[in-house]
Amino acid sequence: MNAQPVRIEGPASGGRRGGTRVAAAMDAIRQRIAARSLTPGSKLPSIRALAAAMGMSTSTVVDAYERLAADGVIRSQPGSGFYVAGKPAPLSLAEIGPRLDRGIDPFWVSRQSLEAGDEVLKPGCGWLPAAWMPEAGLRRALRTLARADDAVLVDYGTPLGLPVLRQLLARRMGERGIAASPEQILLTESGTQALDLLCRFLIEPGDTVLVDDPCYFNFHALLRAHRASIVAVPYTPSGPDIERFGQVLAAHRPRLYLTNSAIHNPTGAVLSPVVAHRILKLAEQFAMTIVEDDIFADFEHVPEPRLAAFDGLDRVVHVGSFSKTLSASARCGFIAARPDWVEGLIDLKIVTAFSGGRLGAELVSAVLRDGSYRRHMDGLRQRLAGAMAATSARLKAIGITPWLEPQAGMFLWCSLPGGIDAADIARDALAEGIVLAPGNAFSLSQSASGFLRFNVAQSQDPRLYDVLRRAIARRERGQ
Amino acid sequence: MNAQPVRIEGPASGGRRGGTRVAAAMDAIRQRIAARSLTPGSKLPSIRALAAAMGMSTSTVVDAYERLAADGVIRSQPGSGFYVAGKPAPLSLAEIGPRLDRGIDPFWVSRQSLEAGDEVLKPGCGWLPAAWMPEAGLRRALRTLARADDAVLVDYGTPLGLPVLRQLLARRMGERGIAASPEQILLTESGTQALDLLCRFLIEPGDTVLVDDPCYFNFHALLRAHRASIVAVPYTPSGPDIERFGQVLAAHRPRLYLTNSAIHNPTGAVLSPVVAHRILKLAEQFAMTIVEDDIFADFEHVPEPRLAAFDGLDRVVHVGSFSKTLSASARCGFIAARPDWVEGLIDLKIVTAFSGGRLGAELVSAVLRDGSYRRHMDGLRQRLAGAMAATSARLKAIGITPWLEPQAGMFLWCSLPGGIDAADIARDALAEGIVLAPGNAFSLSQSASGFLRFNVAQSQDPRLYDVLRRAIARRERGQ
Repeated sequence: MNAQPVRIEGPASGGRRGGTRVAAAMDAIRQRIAARSLTPGSKLPSIRALAAAMGMSTSTVVDAYERLAADGVIRSQPGSGFYVAGKPAPLSLAEIGPRLDRGIDPFWVSRQSLEAGDEVLKPGCGWLPAAWMPEAGLRRALRTLARADDAVLVDYGTPLGLPVLRQLLARRMGERGIAASPEQILLTESGTQALDLLCRFLIEPGDTVLVDDPCYFNFHALLRAHRASIVAVPYTPSGPDIERFGQVLAAHRPRLYLTNSAIHNPTGAVLSPVVAHRILKLAEQFAMTIVEDDIFADFEHVPEPRLAAFDGLDRVVHVGSFSKTLSASARCGFIAARPDWVEGLIDLKIVTAFSGGRLGAELVSAVLRDGSYRRHMDGLRQRLAGAMAATSARLKAIGITPWLEPQAGMFLWCSLPGGIDAADIARDALAEGIVLAPGNAFSLSQSASGFLRFNVAQSQDPRLYDVLRRAIARRERGQ
Repeated sequence: MNAQPVRIEGPASGGRRGGTRVAAAMDAIRQRIAARSLTPGSKLPSIRALAAAMGMSTSTVVDAYERLAADGVIRSQPGSGFYVAGKPAPLSLAEIGPRLDRGIDPFWVSRQSLEAGDEVLKPGCGWLPAAWMPEAGLRRALRTLARADDAVLVDYGTPLGLPVLRQLLARRMGERGIAASPEQILLTESGTQALDLLCRFLIEPGDTVLVDDPCYFNFHALLRAHRASIVAVPYTPSGPDIERFGQVLAAHRPRLYLTNSAIHNPTGAVLSPVVAHRILKLAEQFAMTIVEDDIFADFEHVPEPRLAAFDGLDRVVHVGSFSKTLSASARCGFIAARPDWVEGLIDLKIVTAFSGGRLGAELVSAVLRDGSYRRHMDGLRQRLAGAMAATSARLKAIGITPWLEPQAGMFLWCSLPGGIDAADIARDALAEGIVLAPGNAFSLSQSASGFLRFNVAQSQDPRLYDVLRRAIARRERGQ
């Protein structure tokens, strides 16, 4: 992992010479239109202003405007200036920021995995097989709900969400050293919705946000949807590279750092207490907020300290969910935040969702309270540890090497034999009915082309290893 | 109803004279900072640029900048210019756009209603009493779900959402003249989430959006969260005032029109076919998209034509949900849109929610399919018609006059006796444990201070009329 911090910027920059200046100016304007920083009907900057901003001569900009007008991209309005042509088109996320290789963009893994039928193997997906989930507890909870009060079945939830579940969450967080009162906890539909709500609350278009490289691919897509400028720092087995972390904070002043600290996705690494301490000191120095997405917390054998525990929910916001360990069908996530932010988060939740899913919260609460969840998790951790060891051994046998042996969780971040591109392997595997997770889907700097993320619970079928072995052999032969 | 189209703008404008020019410039900058169009750490416009933009002399702007710097609002960086001081603070919706009277801002009704305990009467809320909902069908569906396949209980849904429910929705829309294939239908957690997703997809910060005056209060809050500029047109008993509608389109070129056409919230009015036709012609002329929020559709006795039916889902996007008629606890809404927009909407749904609530969709689907929903709705429409007649009569008896007698639905939009402010009545009622819905919560122009919205299903308790009678008498005596 030697990812560089990368800054995503609207217009093209650098590297062009002489006769291509006009083309560079045209490109920059086209990209601003594609990225909607210039929208149909809006006025273009004056020739003088654009020339100054791009460090070009006015004659270069005049040429660029005239050629774009000839192409129908912009139109001249005599006496007024140039305007973006065309009728408004809806937003496409692919158009925000530079377009990565569409084959492995941030949606590749989720779209392929969510759309795959039962016959498809999904070692690239981010969830457990249905058979590994606590179905007996859920069935019991559904039967109990069928006898609940009318209000439980039909009414909106309260703005913060089911009180009994928030009390339970506060106790569970307490066990991990995070002191949060139930009034600091806001239920959401999911961990994803929690992160989306926090992005709305904490950042605005153009703000800079820091992520790990690699990180969960949906972080990239979410931050683009919020029109953030993304910077990244390489992740090491004990957390982000702290030297680079400090440099990036000094250079880019990110408003927010979005991370998983306990079991990092995709690497399975765990943040060390020393790195956690240094992150928090730097965050304080540069007035940066941290959102700690802790949805894999319950997979840990021994709870590691959280940023939220060190910090006491001052500068850190803590997010969790039950999609990975209980049910992804009954949606339920949560945010724990500083008390003075709760009112603003409630307003945003009402505006964008009106109310959380009361039924989902009741269901999660019932399974958590009857003891079956704790027993389920004890068994699940053992089962995952076994699958982790087995998958690691089987991958090594075909030349695929784990970056580290994770202490817990479902993910194994692995490098392919020298020079093979994971995107090629992923495409080959897809043709044979297997969805993989190629490394660059997780990497802002696109420096993880030699990596794949394996979900050990979804990597038990021998077909996977057969397909991987053949795909690697084919690429090694250069086919 | 003589609402003026109102345009929400960041800085203060107009009406100031002579010696207060410096104060006006200071105000404008403070408001831009409050509205976050200038964020902490960002550079202020040059003195010359601001002077030109505000039509002021440079010396006025110099004075304003210096006084703001003395107040600590901004800071001067020698040789570089002026910067906004202070450390970044999180977004508060109250800070986007001008701050309405906090007493009756767009959150007033929802916060009061969602937070109220069982002992509180809620004639101002937007949902039915729990006892009016189809609890028997829901209990049966929960018992059936308790025996479903593991995947139903624990897996994520597909990106579009449960196929059997989308087929059913396509058939139901067909009955209302809206031709939508199941592949054009995207399930969401709720109608609110559907609208939020569409705002993300269709508008960007600064775009102008048109709403009705009055309209559902959450439209204002949602559009502010999306940093839209809002314009409004007065609503008449047959739809928006079409002359004003054309004028506003010509003057403001809104990108989007957000409305309920069938049973309008809060007025209970129904869009006439002639007005629908003219709206669609104007929308075409000015390249405007229409989002038709049709969550009250199932309350109609006779289906009136929808904008989406006239238009064939070209320029119109159709939104529905089951929160009002089936369950607000099991969240389930949907979007029907033109086929070429579906992929982009799926990407946005994955980014912001990862997956819809499969369990909620399964539950709604089960109740819809077993026939109990249709029987429930037949009874519910009759029950609402009775409550509508009774509530109307009881309100008239104490001097509160319906603006029209709605054909269907739960809302009655009523005017108070001359000169009484609904916000005062709402505050008096709240002190006696009754949540009302004062008119200005629904009005962008704040021209509905003499109106209240009543939910006839929640207006059966005689205490309500007693409290209203006393509050009106007190205000008429000028206390």
